[in-house]
Amino acid sequence: MDKPVMRVEELERFLQDEFPQINADGQAFTIDSIEPGRAVMRLNPNQRHLRPGGTVSGPTLFTLADLAAYVVILGHIGPVALAVTTNLSINFLRKPADGQPLFGTGRLLKLGRRLAVVDVAITDESGMLVAQASATYSIPPDRVAVVK
Amino acid sequence: MDKPVMRVEELERFLQDEFPQINADGQAFTIDSIEPGRAVMRLNPNQRHLRPGGTVSGPTLFTLADLAAYVVILGHIGPVALAVTTNLSINFLRKPADGQPLFGTGRLLKLGRRLAVVDVAITDESGMLVAQASATYSIPPDRVAVVK
Amino acid sequence: MDKPVMRVEELERFLQDEFPQINADGQAFTIDSIEPGRAVMRLNPNQRHLRPGGTVSGPTLFTLADLAAYVVILGHIGPVALAVTTNLSINFLRKPADGQPLFGTGRLLKLGRRLAVVDVAITDESGMLVAQASATYSIPPDRVAVVK
Amino acid sequence: MDKPVMRVEELERFLQDEFPQINADGQAFTIDSIEPGRAVMRLNPNQRHLRPGGTVSGPTLFTLADLAAYVVILGHIGPVALAVTTNLSINFLRKPADGQPLFGTGRLLKLGRRLAVVDVAITDESGMLVAQASATYSIPPDRVAVVK
Repeated sequence: MDKPVMRVEELERFLQDEFPQINADGQAFTIDSIEPGRAVMRLNPNQRHLRPGGTVSGPTLFTLADLAAYVVILGHIGPVALAVTTNLSINFLRKPADGQPLFGTGRLLKLGRRLAVVDVAITDESGMLVAQASATYSIPPDRVAVVK
Repeated sequence: MDKPVMRVEELERFLQDEFPQINADGQAFTIDSIEPGRAVMRLNPNQRHLRPGGTVSGPTLFTLADLAAYVVILGHIGPVALAVTTNLSINFLRKPADGQPLFGTGRLLKLGRRLAVVDVAITDESGMLVAQASATYSIPPDRVAVVK
Repeated sequence: MDKPVMRVEELERFLQDEFPQINADGQAFTIDSIEPGRAVMRLNPNQRHLRPGGTVSGPTLFTLADLAAYVVILGHIGPVALAVTTNLSINFLRKPADGQPLFGTGRLLKLGRRLAVVDVAITDESGMLVAQASATYSIPPDRVAVVK
Repeated sequence: MDKPVMRVEELERFLQDEFPQINADGQAFTIDSIEPGRAVMRLNPNQRHLRPGGTVSGPTLFTLADLAAYVVILGHIGPVALAVTTNLSINFLRKPADGQPLFGTGRLLKLGRRLAVVDVAITDESGMLVAQASATYSIPPDRVAVVK
């Protein structure tokens, strides 16, 4: 697997520009690491991400999986704003403990010219598997880098 | 397919209690109808649901699909708070037009004692298909009705 | 939705050339119809498609779903041998009755330049839903028609 | 993860009784190993599993994934004939080389009382990833062991 072409700071800046709403209520979603074929997103949940009782909501887990997939692809092809999710399938496995950080580890299964497929494991701090997802992204024909 | 056992008003009250965060910023998600084997959720998107440029975000489409599935199941088995999504697979098909209402039509494919499977079509006002999802819900062994 | 560009006989001949093994033991898989946005495959199961007890096996239902998706795409874009399945997700809903014909109805949800998404409903003769699938196909950049 | 309760020989005998058709044309599908949380199936493809040109067909890859999931579950809960696939989602990533053995590694993501979720990686002898699948199995309420 080739080396990433973007660093964590560049990826976070790009995310912030493209998806400002994800961190509208504070820096809940951050990037922990990017390395060949793999990236780790972290979620520090706030009230907005929780259901009554304290567990993290399904849409929040979906968001974490989708972002982890996006970041690992972006980190390997460069800042291509138009890469879009075409399918995401998520299995909800165990209820996460109340309010604790969660980690989404995106692993590139395929990075083709037209499609990328990513496996995402969502775990808590103890390593317990909370959810597993597969995402397919369509990659635009002309990878015009977005320069800002 | 059997007749629903809950009316729209009962379902909306139940949703509001179980998922208060979905309408935290105003009544974005409402229930249009419930009938045998089918329910329609409506989303009137606000700023929180949009990406820069104005299109509805992936997590918002996921939420609409998940709610439509939850509502059609709940409407047929009664207020069982513990029905939980075990899998949701969503295909993103076309970009919705900026800021317009979207509709999630949940259709019961199977309502067993332990599992329910729902197909969800997300369309805009013109009927254009924006996304399609399949959701599997696990139904608790004892369907203890939640009385409040 | 545009009109199909291939007729049933052309599609069956193409399938026979591309997938001779599906009918190696007799004409189990045939095409019932093709119309705008939709195609129906029929399976007349033989011993090879059954599990002990007589129910149709999972791989056979997968094959029926995949063929229905392939046929409805092919019927609308013409004989492009290289259209390939990139993802297929199938929900097994009810056990089909022993040895009876099954029908796979493929419905085009999207037919883009690069990707096609198809919903497939598998039913028996009474219309009972046996399985439901979503398939994504990648369409080759140059749709070079295969002439034989 | 708990230790398996069945050995490779027991699993192969059980498979042979339940799914005799998979090896109708010779011992194509065999079990390589079972260990805590994991099982490996092997496919030695014969003519029946190949498409014209020599690549392994989609239904054959589906079968390998489904069997790997079944075997890892069975190996941990004992010979429960009625565990049934409720959903299988498969991503086809790369074309396998002609006629070579393939391996399906099933990994238990969750083994609950009612549902089991398994991730399956299909690789060739060089370790190249050919396909990835997630399967959900429904586990019967009474795990009556099948004694023959």
